[in-house]
Amino acid sequence: MAVDLLGGDDAPAVVVDGALRAMRADPDLHLLLVGPTEVADELIAALGPAQRARITVRPVRDSVGMADHPSAARAESTVRAVVTAVRDGTADALVSAGATGATVTAAVLGLGRWPEIRQPALVATLPAVAGPVVLLDVGGTLEPRPATLARHAVLGAAYAAVAHSVAAPRVGLLSVGTEAGKGDRVRRATDPLLSVEPLPGGAHYVGLVEGYDVTLGARADVVVTDGFTGNVLLKAIEGAYAMAGGPPVGGGAPRAAALLGVAGTVVVCHGSAGADDVASGIALAAHLWRRRAIDLVSALLDGDAVADRSDRSTDTEVRTS
Amino acid sequence: MAVDLLGGDDAPAVVVDGALRAMRADPDLHLLLVGPTEVADELIAALGPAQRARITVRPVRDSVGMADHPSAARAESTVRAVVTAVRDGTADALVSAGATGATVTAAVLGLGRWPEIRQPALVATLPAVAGPVVLLDVGGTLEPRPATLARHAVLGAAYAAVAHSVAAPRVGLLSVGTEAGKGDRVRRATDPLLSVEPLPGGAHYVGLVEGYDVTLGARADVVVTDGFTGNVLLKAIEGAYAMAGGPPVGGGAPRAAALLGVAGTVVVCHGSAGADDVASGIALAAHLWRRRAIDLVSALLDGDAVADRSDRSTDTEVRTS
Repeated sequence: MAVDLLGGDDAPAVVVDGALRAMRADPDLHLLLVGPTEVADELIAALGPAQRARITVRPVRDSVGMADHPSAARAESTVRAVVTAVRDGTADALVSAGATGATVTAAVLGLGRWPEIRQPALVATLPAVAGPVVLLDVGGTLEPRPATLARHAVLGAAYAAVAHSVAAPRVGLLSVGTEAGKGDRVRRATDPLLSVEPLPGGAHYVGLVEGYDVTLGARADVVVTDGFTGNVLLKAIEGAYAMAGGPPVGGGAPRAAALLGVAGTVVVCHGSAGADDVASGIALAAHLWRRRAIDLVSALLDGDAVADRSDRSTDTEVRTS
Repeated sequence: MAVDLLGGDDAPAVVVDGALRAMRADPDLHLLLVGPTEVADELIAALGPAQRARITVRPVRDSVGMADHPSAARAESTVRAVVTAVRDGTADALVSAGATGATVTAAVLGLGRWPEIRQPALVATLPAVAGPVVLLDVGGTLEPRPATLARHAVLGAAYAAVAHSVAAPRVGLLSVGTEAGKGDRVRRATDPLLSVEPLPGGAHYVGLVEGYDVTLGARADVVVTDGFTGNVLLKAIEGAYAMAGGPPVGGGAPRAAALLGVAGTVVVCHGSAGADDVASGIALAAHLWRRRAIDLVSALLDGDAVADRSDRSTDTEVRTS
């Protein structure tokens, strides 16, 4: 797992701390630390001699700041270097808590998009009453066209089937009411597209769903929305759980999201991630890689019968919250 | 208070029940029941003889359904009749749990918009750590232009000052990050407008805020967003509190919203409102009328020095959740 040591508001301290927690929780984890040598050394110093073999360092000094334009990811930086590590096979997956736009841009440029995916989606999984709810997009594409939302429904259905083993996922389009015709122009244009879109993984479209369904999961396993709404929702839900005195038993709002639509396993953490969030992002990346989730999602999109669904390991569902 | 007996998914039963609860909670409340006579009779039968004097009935048989187009509110219906009651002075305020679009349309047509308000806003108040957070729009205008969002910021600031006695409200524009330039096109266009917009009630613009701020209130007392995002947020937060085992001590997500920008006191409840929600909607309408909130907001918008801020009564802050 390639880790961007300089990504995030509180980097590198929380990233170092999070990486340590992830290593302690998962004895099979190997990390490629990308950032200044002295920061990596600090992490290595905290490990016993036997653990140090699980660390590789790639020294990079520059990073993309939270206020920088995403295109800053074109320049040499930690986020570009973690992407390069995945492309050249040095790492199996990457994790960054840096600016989302920069990570997405670097991943698209460095790894390439899947065919027919113009806009990759960030997908987050929330715990709900009857099981997980897959929410996308949570910040990758702020203003999707209806065709993009329909593609994201396909991505989300495949992800629910592969990453969370949801059988026959129910896919809903987030709107302000469930009756046909409710919503703004993009929702009204997407609803008829989705009702004829073939969905993978035995998924079916259930129509418009509401905000409740994101948190309670009563109507859908996959909730499709634009990245603006998804991002705002996720943070408001996190705040609500903080207000309520803590997350529900099944876990709270996720603070790490997977990027779907690029050729590689990419996990983005909140810019304001704490050490636990970084650790859960690393765990999510390892979980996805071991499940071959990105390959399997891609195969489902191509309409391939997925013969080999064997995991790379026997890990169980990770908590991403 | 004029009450639309036929508004809402579970009308008239929950409206009757909610009206009864509101009357028991507030001995000074008089209700104008608008709907079928037999429904009103059912409510009256549940009251003691002394209480029956607090009820007036206006028989109307037709209603606007949740799936109807908002323009259906043009036809004779309960929602149009409650608006007429406010316009002709028979009622001081109206409450409906019917389709939001129909109620807004009926209120705009029947009561008229304030000058310079092209798009009225639905405003909801959420409890947060340091005090209430006023969120608007929560479903009135799904696709506002930047100028509309800027006007809504003015409405929200005035409402926070008047309805919740917030001194010098902090006004934020909801986006996906706090750094300037974060967000979609409408946010990027609105941010510079708001930074020069004169705000009433001693309010000031604090810039972009995030989803957390809606639930925690750390950065802003007034959060401005489009009606699509606001509506979805409010319902997701409600679901989050249900997931967390109940709302926080200060109260949960509001299930009644005030309409700002029309010449009258109008409160809209959720279509899926329960009896308690209808009761809290009626209590909110009474609270706003007693505080002269709509008049005072209008006066603040006109830039008038508000000499007479005296309440119509001495009621205390009502819970709207």
